[in-house]
Amino acid sequence: MLYFIGLGLGDAKDITVKGLEIVKQCSRVYLEAYTSILTVGKDALEEYYGRELILADRDMVEQEADEILKGADVSDVAFLVVGDPFGATTHSDLVLRAVNAGIQYRVIHNASIMNAVGCCGLQLYNFGETVSIVFWTDTWRPESFYDKIKKNRDLGMHTLCLLDIKVKEQSMENLMRGRKIYEPPRFMTVSQAAEQLLEIVQNRRERGDDLAISEETICVGLARVGAEDQVIRAGTLRQLASCDLGSPLHSMIVTGHLHPLEVDMLRLSVATPDALQDLRMTDSSTYTS
Amino acid sequence: MLYFIGLGLGDAKDITVKGLEIVKQCSRVYLEAYTSILTVGKDALEEYYGRELILADRDMVEQEADEILKGADVSDVAFLVVGDPFGATTHSDLVLRAVNAGIQYRVIHNASIMNAVGCCGLQLYNFGETVSIVFWTDTWRPESFYDKIKKNRDLGMHTLCLLDIKVKEQSMENLMRGRKIYEPPRFMTVSQAAEQLLEIVQNRRERGDDLAISEETICVGLARVGAEDQVIRAGTLRQLASCDLGSPLHSMIVTGHLHPLEVDMLRLSVATPDALQDLRMTDSSTYTS
Repeated sequence: MLYFIGLGLGDAKDITVKGLEIVKQCSRVYLEAYTSILTVGKDALEEYYGRELILADRDMVEQEADEILKGADVSDVAFLVVGDPFGATTHSDLVLRAVNAGIQYRVIHNASIMNAVGCCGLQLYNFGETVSIVFWTDTWRPESFYDKIKKNRDLGMHTLCLLDIKVKEQSMENLMRGRKIYEPPRFMTVSQAAEQLLEIVQNRRERGDDLAISEETICVGLARVGAEDQVIRAGTLRQLASCDLGSPLHSMIVTGHLHPLEVDMLRLSVATPDALQDLRMTDSSTYTS
Repeated sequence: MLYFIGLGLGDAKDITVKGLEIVKQCSRVYLEAYTSILTVGKDALEEYYGRELILADRDMVEQEADEILKGADVSDVAFLVVGDPFGATTHSDLVLRAVNAGIQYRVIHNASIMNAVGCCGLQLYNFGETVSIVFWTDTWRPESFYDKIKKNRDLGMHTLCLLDIKVKEQSMENLMRGRKIYEPPRFMTVSQAAEQLLEIVQNRRERGDDLAISEETICVGLARVGAEDQVIRAGTLRQLASCDLGSPLHSMIVTGHLHPLEVDMLRLSVATPDALQDLRMTDSSTYTS
């Protein structure tokens, strides 16, 4: 049996009781290490689970899937994923390979950012399509996520923005020279995401576009959701561009139409009483009392 | 401290290790019992947790919240919720009451249907707004969820349909006579939801509306997601109207644009090889190879 086990979002103890029992009895345990991170590292997980974990990076999952599946028809193998195994990233490829090889699989679910964002007080019902915001480079500055946020806002929906993670990336030079030297991991912050979004707003304004988002649109920054030191910060897009929410992972929400109860919940997460006032006043087009 | 603890979707062991530790040390433990159910009952949870659970129905949470919060400023109280505490239903009211009373709160997340549906192979990224389908009565037959599904489909998005739960409902007669006699719980099945949707499709066709959904639209029925006996069934809306997925809870997805990898995953869940063929052929407007 191949078990896909979600680890949740915080630390080693966010695994479910069922998940932990399975981890302890599997013959091999892989840890998927390229789509997300916990606030604790591999060592802390190994110590808590009492098991050696095999790090599975993107290359391994995509090119050496047979290695992961080996023997899973006669013994149990676990594939651990931060969040939920079918959360932000699905592992459909690995599922299909297993099924084709006659290996049964089972999913042990857990929280993912896709549902845990509800903790900020915005109703999951009121979210539209989720978008990803990637790091811009000098030559690649995609704006397509803006259009998706616009579509959601036109329907009154909130947008969860998942922020870029760069793990085990090679510089262009190292890639071309075939040197397996990797850049340090990078995680986009709420501030960086807000800056990119502000730049697009400015570009669109200069083009004369109908603006779906402005500097005053209410957004929510979230850091380390589910961990003890989780931070949620509600404010205008401009305010979030200059806030520091600390270490990764960060996510951001661009709000749509705000229900009064949602506003009351967001007010728990604003920095100062003045900001409470702002929240009621600055984006009144999306707020109905 | 008031702890909101998600129980996940399957049985007693789907609580997280952290959640279980907290349950064991709280002075009182409430079980929210009106928005969802586990496949196991209160007794099984009490036995596994080694704790007495106080059932919190809607009346209690809405009218006797002070009772739940009592003493939570000096001791620990747990409020258990099937799925995630901020999943399909938020408990914002209780959070705001706690904060106003100077009581700190903390959330222990878990899987909810809102993210666990990813297990059927459809990407969570590609879901639009979630809708609820309620039981029709002779005099109340709302169709508004159809329009939301249409909006999602127009954007190529899938729609998760949460199906009605009637727990502790009174008949009109008992309500008017003030008799606290409750009807047996009812849970909408995928078949019932599909029947209601088919009726709306027929109504709209007779009105000459532009049809966003037809009898041949690919849908996915899900039952008991996360439990050992989980069932996922992909097929046309017409096929799902006549399928029996067994005991509750059920959910349904109306697909939008299907990515080839999503089709491959759905093919794992169709009943017969013929149905595989159907899946490729009947809704080709939404499938691009």
